[in-house]
Amino acid sequence: MAAVKTTGLVGAIRPAGVPKRARKGLRSPNPETAAKVLSAAADLIGSGGFRRLRVEEVAERAGVSVGTFYLYFEGKDDLLVQLVVDHTARLRQRLAPAYATEGSFAARLRQALDAYLGFAEDDEAGFLCTVQDGGMVDTTAGRLSTWVVGQHVADLRPVVEEAMAKGEIRRDDPTLVSQAIVGLVQHLAIFWLQHRDHCTRADLQRFVERSANLPPKLG
Amino acid sequence: MAAVKTTGLVGAIRPAGVPKRARKGLRSPNPETAAKVLSAAADLIGSGGFRRLRVEEVAERAGVSVGTFYLYFEGKDDLLVQLVVDHTARLRQRLAPAYATEGSFAARLRQALDAYLGFAEDDEAGFLCTVQDGGMVDTTAGRLSTWVVGQHVADLRPVVEEAMAKGEIRRDDPTLVSQAIVGLVQHLAIFWLQHRDHCTRADLQRFVERSANLPPKLG
Repeated sequence: MAAVKTTGLVGAIRPAGVPKRARKGLRSPNPETAAKVLSAAADLIGSGGFRRLRVEEVAERAGVSVGTFYLYFEGKDDLLVQLVVDHTARLRQRLAPAYATEGSFAARLRQALDAYLGFAEDDEAGFLCTVQDGGMVDTTAGRLSTWVVGQHVADLRPVVEEAMAKGEIRRDDPTLVSQAIVGLVQHLAIFWLQHRDHCTRADLQRFVERSANLPPKLG
Repeated sequence: MAAVKTTGLVGAIRPAGVPKRARKGLRSPNPETAAKVLSAAADLIGSGGFRRLRVEEVAERAGVSVGTFYLYFEGKDDLLVQLVVDHTARLRQRLAPAYATEGSFAARLRQALDAYLGFAEDDEAGFLCTVQDGGMVDTTAGRLSTWVVGQHVADLRPVVEEAMAKGEIRRDDPTLVSQAIVGLVQHLAIFWLQHRDHCTRADLQRFVERSANLPPKLG
């Protein structure tokens, strides 16, 4: 999770059941401070994972006091939510050009898969944190892990619907088809990152393309 | 998670990084006490989920003291690990007859899918707890959620290999094929349980069968 940028989405969802007390007191929040804390947390997750992360070390690395941390974040769950929201927004930005590509559904899906796996590879710890640690966190928008999948499904579904309308793929429930693609790719990406000795990124990419019955890539 | 039975597997894996101090002091553990605590926790998860669970209420419902709880479990993570181990063992028992069915790969997979979705439906809270809350827990056998998938993949892979050897399905990496099937079914089962208004169990079952290119069921 090296390159954290504030995306404008940060703060859109929050952990459920936690009163929003601390941040109420902050009259003029500094977006740079929030970004600095998120970036420090991302670096620390990159080396030790989310579970072992302590608020004290995040504050120290960001060069802010623990008190300042709590002016911006309600605690570790809130930090995780904001990191995952930021990570998901950046991944969606990487996927958008693939979905907008001129050409067949197969070409779009192939390019999106390449972008997805590239993003996961560039920031392995951030990716695993986003797709695994979010399972236990309830937010105002449901389980964090469910929210992540829902974001990607919302982007993919119109592409799937267009392909069905053009007769490129069999007509079926476009939500289930999109859920299946997002769920399958996410699951296999986790497996691949944790078993690099079992298969390469190219092996995995070809496997998913065969599973989705995409025609072999030419050239 | 109503019907918790001790499976003999309980205690096989433990949360990582936690010294096994408390249970060392227990010279003659009573399996009935452990089962009573697990059963009480399962009931409470059924009504309120794992996140909100407090050790005090588990002990109270099980009719044991908090001190006794800590003689058997190191804390909430350890409790979750043992619940998930138990849940997974019971699900594998339900799937075993399907995998051992005489007949085609399609028949076996169809029967296994039916058993899997039936098990998830019978104990929705226990299923969601097992497949979602385990993401954040590191155990002596890796991430708890990864361990769960690995157990099912180990059972499915020989069935897949046999189908490839018989020419029933395309030859491919049997581990990736098994990971894809387990990951896809788990993901779609979560979606289905959380969106019962979107599709019925029969809708989902037919969708997975189409996705796996299984021939339509006769009769």
